[in-house]
Amino acid sequence: MIKKDLCIIGSGPAGLTAAVYGARYKIDQVLIGNLDGGLMTTSHKICNYPGETEISGIDLALKMEQQVKSLEVDKITANVIDIIKSNDNFKVILSNSKEIEAKNIILATGTVHRHLGLENEERFLGKGISYCATCDAMFYRDKIVAVIGGSDSANTAALYLANVAKKVYQIYRKDKLRGETAWIDQIKKNDKIEVIYNAEIKKIEGAEKLESIIINENGVEKNLQIDGMFVEIGSQPDRTLIDKLNLETDSGSYIITKPDQSTSVDSVYAAGDITTNSDSFRQIITACSEGSIAAKSVFEKLQKD
Amino acid sequence: MIKKDLCIIGSGPAGLTAAVYGARYKIDQVLIGNLDGGLMTTSHKICNYPGETEISGIDLALKMEQQVKSLEVDKITANVIDIIKSNDNFKVILSNSKEIEAKNIILATGTVHRHLGLENEERFLGKGISYCATCDAMFYRDKIVAVIGGSDSANTAALYLANVAKKVYQIYRKDKLRGETAWIDQIKKNDKIEVIYNAEIKKIEGAEKLESIIINENGVEKNLQIDGMFVEIGSQPDRTLIDKLNLETDSGSYIITKPDQSTSVDSVYAAGDITTNSDSFRQIITACSEGSIAAKSVFEKLQKD
Repeated sequence: MIKKDLCIIGSGPAGLTAAVYGARYKIDQVLIGNLDGGLMTTSHKICNYPGETEISGIDLALKMEQQVKSLEVDKITANVIDIIKSNDNFKVILSNSKEIEAKNIILATGTVHRHLGLENEERFLGKGISYCATCDAMFYRDKIVAVIGGSDSANTAALYLANVAKKVYQIYRKDKLRGETAWIDQIKKNDKIEVIYNAEIKKIEGAEKLESIIINENGVEKNLQIDGMFVEIGSQPDRTLIDKLNLETDSGSYIITKPDQSTSVDSVYAAGDITTNSDSFRQIITACSEGSIAAKSVFEKLQKD
Repeated sequence: MIKKDLCIIGSGPAGLTAAVYGARYKIDQVLIGNLDGGLMTTSHKICNYPGETEISGIDLALKMEQQVKSLEVDKITANVIDIIKSNDNFKVILSNSKEIEAKNIILATGTVHRHLGLENEERFLGKGISYCATCDAMFYRDKIVAVIGGSDSANTAALYLANVAKKVYQIYRKDKLRGETAWIDQIKKNDKIEVIYNAEIKKIEGAEKLESIIINENGVEKNLQIDGMFVEIGSQPDRTLIDKLNLETDSGSYIITKPDQSTSVDSVYAAGDITTNSDSFRQIITACSEGSIAAKSVFEKLQKD
């Protein structure tokens, strides 16, 4: 049993920043994560992280990882499979069978990609269906692909895919793309991208792999022959640890957090995409900020113990 | 008269980040500031900005400035001397006599160093008294200096000065330094730094320049012969523009901001050290986060107009 004052769960921007601040405060802490950088690593181009004119998600993750390493943060690469509250502590059980007894928790596990919930969706995962353009675009050189969604992540996915694919359909249920105007302008100028507005995907078809989709555009059904489909319809928190800790959430499963990043459960803090803070503006910079505040709050609490 | 949808006032981390996000949203904006990076430029070493293991404030400011430049942000180097609300707009009057008519304001003017309020303090400014160790340390090679304060900025100033000066007195009114343990540990190990706890500075003495100070340590008056004194007792917002806009503040003059960074006055947003947000944890990363949220809020408001 490893005993710690603080266990940070999640190694995306929020968890990594909490670890940096925790290390600077010399908190006796451990950081648990399975992918340094988290969802950020799926961004092929980031232009709005202050100080980085243009950087890939993987490179920014590497820089943060290096910083955490330089501070000699105790870090375990694993998943958390259970958390049990016992007396004043939390017993955190890892996928590698290790156990941690922690006085405080910072939950920074972010969000997972939302699925369409259609038949064949899970079956064709990796066989034409992907939730990460950065990861999988290269499999679709000179092919025809579809991007589902109209937010920043869908827009950047469409633009990235247009560099590689022959043709990109972007299918969105509303009549106007949303998010940064810079991306929208680029999409409008890009001959390879055809945006289909007011359209919803109804069916995913194929034998061994994805072959076509049926969409409903303004009430008319259409069949599109495609080789690949990238689902970018947003993300939501994974409820597993939220439920184990019995944390209060809003209707979207986001953890309700106070200004100091504390939650409805004593000694449990949350930071990053998983919370309702930062006006629900889920960005790398806001996640980092929340991570720093959570670490500060734990430090102040430990000072009083 | 320059007409803009948004006028960002202040070019520290909050203002620069607001400009980055504003530019990505293609908001018709202008950024007004007199020193890119703001107070951050007075930090000689920053170790807690996510992604930068160790960087000077000036270098981080340069990186953010470069990013703003790459986005072709309309930027004016000037001070704001007046803001007048007229109908639905704000007339912003600059020190270079230019005038801007703006629909929305993001106020990100940060804080200014707090002064001791003692006789001779203003007279000896630049003659032994400084509010910026990074700027002025080099004038005190092999000399004896004092640092007033016990927070992170005082601690880093003392450590930085110990690289240059012969002897550093750190004078603090409490019995324990506060802030990051990493800095406190380094101070304890540094032979050149002598921390005088429970002590307050009472008098500043000298003929043409600072020569000595009188402190009260645990009720006993002491005279310290010093060549230089660095005042690091925190900072507070400059009220000038706050009062002109009639913004609601807390008792410390910090602007009361809602989660979306809006203030008590319609169409005026605030971000960074000047606000009560981010649990009042005033860091570069939290300032940047607030800047991004403020720009998003203005973008959403303009979309509805």
